[in-house]
Amino acid sequence: MIKKLTLITCVAALATSPLVAQDAKPAFPSPPEIVAKAKAEEWTAIAPSDLLVMDLAPDAKGEARRVVIQLIPPPFSQGWVGNIRKLAAAKWWDGTAVVRVQDNYVAQWGDPTEKKPLPEGLATVPESDYVTTSPFGVVKTPTGATFRDYLSESIKAADPYAERFEFVSGMPFGYAKTQEIGNVITSSVQISWPVHCYGMVGVGRNLSPDTGTGAELYAVIGHAPRHLDRNIALVGRVIEGLEHLSSLPRGTGPLGFYEKEEERVQINSARLGDEIADLPAFEYLSTDSASFAAYADARANRRDPFFITPAGGADICNIPVPVRRKAK
Amino acid sequence: MIKKLTLITCVAALATSPLVAQDAKPAFPSPPEIVAKAKAEEWTAIAPSDLLVMDLAPDAKGEARRVVIQLIPPPFSQGWVGNIRKLAAAKWWDGTAVVRVQDNYVAQWGDPTEKKPLPEGLATVPESDYVTTSPFGVVKTPTGATFRDYLSESIKAADPYAERFEFVSGMPFGYAKTQEIGNVITSSVQISWPVHCYGMVGVGRNLSPDTGTGAELYAVIGHAPRHLDRNIALVGRVIEGLEHLSSLPRGTGPLGFYEKEEERVQINSARLGDEIADLPAFEYLSTDSASFAAYADARANRRDPFFITPAGGADICNIPVPVRRKAK
Repeated sequence: MIKKLTLITCVAALATSPLVAQDAKPAFPSPPEIVAKAKAEEWTAIAPSDLLVMDLAPDAKGEARRVVIQLIPPPFSQGWVGNIRKLAAAKWWDGTAVVRVQDNYVAQWGDPTEKKPLPEGLATVPESDYVTTSPFGVVKTPTGATFRDYLSESIKAADPYAERFEFVSGMPFGYAKTQEIGNVITSSVQISWPVHCYGMVGVGRNLSPDTGTGAELYAVIGHAPRHLDRNIALVGRVIEGLEHLSSLPRGTGPLGFYEKEEERVQINSARLGDEIADLPAFEYLSTDSASFAAYADARANRRDPFFITPAGGADICNIPVPVRRKAK
Repeated sequence: MIKKLTLITCVAALATSPLVAQDAKPAFPSPPEIVAKAKAEEWTAIAPSDLLVMDLAPDAKGEARRVVIQLIPPPFSQGWVGNIRKLAAAKWWDGTAVVRVQDNYVAQWGDPTEKKPLPEGLATVPESDYVTTSPFGVVKTPTGATFRDYLSESIKAADPYAERFEFVSGMPFGYAKTQEIGNVITSSVQISWPVHCYGMVGVGRNLSPDTGTGAELYAVIGHAPRHLDRNIALVGRVIEGLEHLSSLPRGTGPLGFYEKEEERVQINSARLGDEIADLPAFEYLSTDSASFAAYADARANRRDPFFITPAGGADICNIPVPVRRKAK
């Protein structure tokens, strides 16, 4: 919401023009400036086999529309992630479509007919897998990163949905010591679960006890619908191309479903990243790095020139983990 | 993200089909069901003179695109709101355009040339007007509604950005006893300020001490950018037609500015509501009503059939105040 004029000023600031050097204010870098200066070793590569690459039909101008999704790491949601790997291998999504776009909520895709046979061998995942009860701060992920609750320790991150937070493989997780299901406290150990921030990808399902297979997926395109946390499986995060979903026309049927077949955008293909020949390498800013700590602090306390009142805290979903294409 | 099959089930549930009547689960209404059952007297009319009605150029199919914005009530941001009334009276926005759409952030409109002369008599509003220091819970609004901090009293609404919340005229406000500007505690009285939730409308500005005139406006189209609270003026909330902004193609320039003139969507006109002959009447669910309390509680604790784990709390921006066209 800064004016274009200010944009020009900011670009000049990045170039350290004399105008800025003469400024009496101390220089506080903005979050993007902190990220731009992070060291190469502070970035973590994302394995292509952990990406789901979805190519929508080209837009009206013939431009390609590719959506790249990073799949959630173990130990979270692995039953559904395994199904998604099988569905991609079976080319199941090819010819399916985006069926629903609800403003300030989700874009959802799958088989509009709901009759397309699923590949054999998909797991039925229990509701208990919406969370993990692995002791927080102890479990090692495959990449060796440990759970980290940086946010709640170092900056004010009060939250009505979780007691603490962590990032694992660049994705946000909440945790708590207890959870309530149907008015009954069901857990007295620490549990952790992925959080419905903007761009997170989840699994459509029917009424409980159904948990969905992973064939019908959605991406969050509005304010974080955190009431869905622990009620539905999250399986990843869109790391590139989310605008191809978030800028689609909203469906006019109930819940934003498209009412006419011609409104739907077809999915031409969806494959795991290691099957895509020309895929760029992606990496995220390691959340245990010094640059991430500085970035999160700056997100919570903006002191770059545009700002006059730092917030003094941040919402977990307002600290999106930076992702970029790796320089060749 | 529920499947279409579930959607059908839900529609059946609303119609109290035998299938649902036989269900052993106790019936907990969903937030939309609570709103649908609210009494007529629980709704508050919005005066047409408090609406800014913006007609964008029709879309590619020739469909009209109208965005209706409710202006923020006194005592908040009235310097900018006064300017907006003058700009609308002068038909200043006619022929201007949407100039910027940044994914997960804002859609912004104004004069692309930044050279169009402004009407005479616009106020220069001080930064101190980003907040009001009126004692919370005491100030009466013109409609007679008092400040209300329902949320923080009745449901868990911990927040890193504010100590408590209220709704005034259907819009969200945070408040705190102190604020920090440039590392200095500047206030020891209670202050209150509007909150950057999805759909809120703010005033573009240049670097401090500029506060903007109101000629350049933006609407939030992503996760609430709460770090902007108290740093920029909020002047209203989109109550209808936000999808005409949120579904626009994202700009490819820095900060989502459109790079080419032909990418911009023209604003055909922007007028106060009392100048629009065929405007429907709008009303919001009164936030001091029993139905709103039930709605807010249900948003924080979903117990309708789809949900298995109620959140136990809610983020202020996850409790949007219901608005509807008044039945004739």
